[in-house]
Amino acid sequence: MPPGNTIGMTTTSGPSAEIDIRALTAPAAKVEAYLDQFLDSRALPSNLREAIKYAALAPGKRMRPLLVIYACQAVGGTAEQAMPPAAAIEMIHAFSLVHDDLPAMDDDDLRRGRPTLHKKTNEAMAILAGDALMGLAFELLTTSIEDAPLSRAIIAELAAGTNDMVAGQVYDTLPDFDESVEPLDRLRAIHRHKTGALMRASCRMGAMMGLADDAQLDAITTYGDAIGLMFQVVDDVLDVTQTTEHLGKTAGKDVDQDKLTYPAVIGLDASRAEIERLTKLAHDSIRPMGDAARPLHDLCDFLSVRTK
Amino acid sequence: MPPGNTIGMTTTSGPSAEIDIRALTAPAAKVEAYLDQFLDSRALPSNLREAIKYAALAPGKRMRPLLVIYACQAVGGTAEQAMPPAAAIEMIHAFSLVHDDLPAMDDDDLRRGRPTLHKKTNEAMAILAGDALMGLAFELLTTSIEDAPLSRAIIAELAAGTNDMVAGQVYDTLPDFDESVEPLDRLRAIHRHKTGALMRASCRMGAMMGLADDAQLDAITTYGDAIGLMFQVVDDVLDVTQTTEHLGKTAGKDVDQDKLTYPAVIGLDASRAEIERLTKLAHDSIRPMGDAARPLHDLCDFLSVRTK
Repeated sequence: MPPGNTIGMTTTSGPSAEIDIRALTAPAAKVEAYLDQFLDSRALPSNLREAIKYAALAPGKRMRPLLVIYACQAVGGTAEQAMPPAAAIEMIHAFSLVHDDLPAMDDDDLRRGRPTLHKKTNEAMAILAGDALMGLAFELLTTSIEDAPLSRAIIAELAAGTNDMVAGQVYDTLPDFDESVEPLDRLRAIHRHKTGALMRASCRMGAMMGLADDAQLDAITTYGDAIGLMFQVVDDVLDVTQTTEHLGKTAGKDVDQDKLTYPAVIGLDASRAEIERLTKLAHDSIRPMGDAARPLHDLCDFLSVRTK
Repeated sequence: MPPGNTIGMTTTSGPSAEIDIRALTAPAAKVEAYLDQFLDSRALPSNLREAIKYAALAPGKRMRPLLVIYACQAVGGTAEQAMPPAAAIEMIHAFSLVHDDLPAMDDDDLRRGRPTLHKKTNEAMAILAGDALMGLAFELLTTSIEDAPLSRAIIAELAAGTNDMVAGQVYDTLPDFDESVEPLDRLRAIHRHKTGALMRASCRMGAMMGLADDAQLDAITTYGDAIGLMFQVVDDVLDVTQTTEHLGKTAGKDVDQDKLTYPAVIGLDASRAEIERLTKLAHDSIRPMGDAARPLHDLCDFLSVRTK
């Protein structure tokens, strides 16, 4: 194994473990190929297709598609079964980033180390490409899942996750909280919606495609909720501890924009303790699934110790 | 009957007829009530809900919901059956208007006689409310149609229509046509996508909810395509012949922005002849359905002679 592809770590759930990152993220390539093929199959203006691909197939961790795949496998399904929702959730994620980067929103010039879509093209195209990505995600799910009740259930999950995510953007950028809501509760509401909703939906869609029973779906949901919140706490910590160059996006923006973040509200140490607590919760929830849930276990560790 | 609620007209399909506009548009109130109730039932940040309602329940003709209802009734269904797609298509229409009005797009301050959403609130809210309207439209269709295969088919129709509409916005605002494509063909491509796609989807969803057979669905599709194009030709003609005050939106914008329009490409007289041709095509397509298709017939006449 070449150096640089493993990370050593100690988790609360067992002895130190080495994770093969390359193996863990390998299925992302399958999702990219599937998504690329879907986007080529759809009649679209050429400039719109190019913009959509720039956004959806940009270098990225593909964390949500991996969650779909590994949740599906954890309950006995295959990566192939997981492809439609894996590709769909990546399109929703990409749409949310494109609109979030717009000047009227976060006004970011850099995303995943490259110019944001509105910088690469223009604002009108970024608005429309985002819209198209959302519509195409739903269209994909109507044509690629044979079983109609399952197709509808997956679409319902994606729609609910998307709407909760958009609500989270509103909580984050245009807060309208009642005065009595404490900062930490506001922060949890923002994070659970803004990032958590799509992570939760990823896990649940994967489990549903793998025909999970009720207990399995509950366990996977707990896992998804825990890592969804954990992911955002890690993001908040990285924003204050890493450089722009390292992150591939503008660091320190949260502080500059005076946003509610975990380090700002509870401090850096308590933020790190929260990451550990949520990691343990995620691990514990999927333990009954044994080895089939190993990739989910490792993905959780990877997310908790990531540095960008 | 109070004066002002009827219009006299001569159509190519028969002798002069009087249309009771109030009766024809009456079912719009049912759709508004249904949509209002749905939006209240969904957990949303209060400012987002307010923005969504401002956009989706603004005074309007509700032409697409009426098409859904009347297409459903033309094939033997009821208005009640038609409510979910009627409300969903109005949300998609509202989302498209909100994003289309943004400064980076058409940059319009006035819509349906009131400030556009980004003028009433701000650009970030307009972007997010538009996103939420699209997501909520799909969510509604997953929860409100009992039969799973039908639910999926309706969602597929809405998704395809939405994506074609967004493609039409790209053709219109960021054209990327091959040099060899003639102006009239460009114009048809723009109009068929930008306006036609949702009108077509409205008609088809209505017919599908009414359990149309293949011949009925084909006829309704021909009708939808014809009135979709006709609607936009009328819009182009109104833009050059009416005042801003009368339209409730900025008149003469197409000319100011040097856009491709029917009057600009084929002249005003030929544009009016095209309206007549499409009206006849729409009427002819639904004639086999007899009296059940009378509201569709009248709606077509109403659209062809509207002055705003």
